[in-house]
Amino acid sequence: MDSGLLYSGGKDSTLAALLLEDFYDVTLVTATFGVADAWDHARRTAEELGFDFETVELDRDVAGEAVNRMVEDGYPRNGIQQVHLHALERAAEMEFDAVADGTRRDDRVPSVSRAQAQSLEDRHGVDYIVPLAGFGRGAVDSLVNETLAVTTGPSEQIPKADYEDELRNLLADEHGEEAVAEVFPEHTQTYVRGFARADGDDAATDEAPRAESGTPDAK
Amino acid sequence: MDSGLLYSGGKDSTLAALLLEDFYDVTLVTATFGVADAWDHARRTAEELGFDFETVELDRDVAGEAVNRMVEDGYPRNGIQQVHLHALERAAEMEFDAVADGTRRDDRVPSVSRAQAQSLEDRHGVDYIVPLAGFGRGAVDSLVNETLAVTTGPSEQIPKADYEDELRNLLADEHGEEAVAEVFPEHTQTYVRGFARADGDDAATDEAPRAESGTPDAK
Repeated sequence: MDSGLLYSGGKDSTLAALLLEDFYDVTLVTATFGVADAWDHARRTAEELGFDFETVELDRDVAGEAVNRMVEDGYPRNGIQQVHLHALERAAEMEFDAVADGTRRDDRVPSVSRAQAQSLEDRHGVDYIVPLAGFGRGAVDSLVNETLAVTTGPSEQIPKADYEDELRNLLADEHGEEAVAEVFPEHTQTYVRGFARADGDDAATDEAPRAESGTPDAK
Repeated sequence: MDSGLLYSGGKDSTLAALLLEDFYDVTLVTATFGVADAWDHARRTAEELGFDFETVELDRDVAGEAVNRMVEDGYPRNGIQQVHLHALERAAEMEFDAVADGTRRDDRVPSVSRAQAQSLEDRHGVDYIVPLAGFGRGAVDSLVNETLAVTTGPSEQIPKADYEDELRNLLADEHGEEAVAEVFPEHTQTYVRGFARADGDDAATDEAPRAESGTPDAK
């Protein structure tokens, strides 16, 4: 059976892929509005981990609506949610037996209700799977630590390879850089480099280098 | 890392074990009130599948309360829920890094809220994992079909190796056989015999033999 998993290159969606790979032929699918080529980071991680990789194109109108919604709200939650549901619809239209994402038990967003899941499955004739829906933060951290080599840092420094990065770009283009700072609270992002080394030392998690002095405007 | 998974010998908890086994040393744990030895079916399946097996003893008072609750309600949901939460507490007191169960996305019962999960984790210093929380009926059926050899039949004929069987026994002892029929709607149960044959034919799912004529009172 084939499954397409919405993939950002971060630890959650990578772990979700590892949970599925014994049971499905997993293709990592990065959704893009075609605004930036951040998806290339995801492609590289997918290759490093040995997974098939595809991109799926999202509707630019949805990006516009999501950005407007974020600016209105002053926070990104509802806009991200809109885009995630759209990305799931697009993935469900592809030729997979199952579509999946990296949402965890403790995520507030995106959040797909049982009714939304059932509707997606019925309309597209696919199974919708959330491998980490029953894993809390502690379990995810333990598994990532044992399994993956991860770079961690503030979100503006870590190449997050999905639509979130593009939404930030669009937000900056249409509403100015200060809108990005207003809408997106600073948070920590992860980028998966590959598998953890088999010797099991704790060097698997690196901090991203902070901006050096002399580059205060580094993007 | 070690995990203890509440195990009934059915398809859901067996599939949950297979999802975890790449990441944890999984012990299958069957909870028992010591009323019956139905757990022995689970032990045999665990052995067939190559998993470690343990039983954990539940408090008889909890069984009594649950049975009274079921009779009052006229349906088993709340009683089962009480017993399941108690079984999770007992499993969390064991020496595992993580405890888990076979609950699926579409199950109405047992149902452990996010707050209950977090509380269990905080009080016992364990992770609580629900490997099938993000899998709907369709995905579970596909995976079981590809992976396991299963016997299916009405619940009174299938040896369900966990506390549900004991609760039925207690209910019959204390309130008569007719109380069991009143409280438990007839439903289909599964019993895992082992792995599906590698040749992938569809003989993996058997119907349990119906009671033969001449044995109308077969239990």
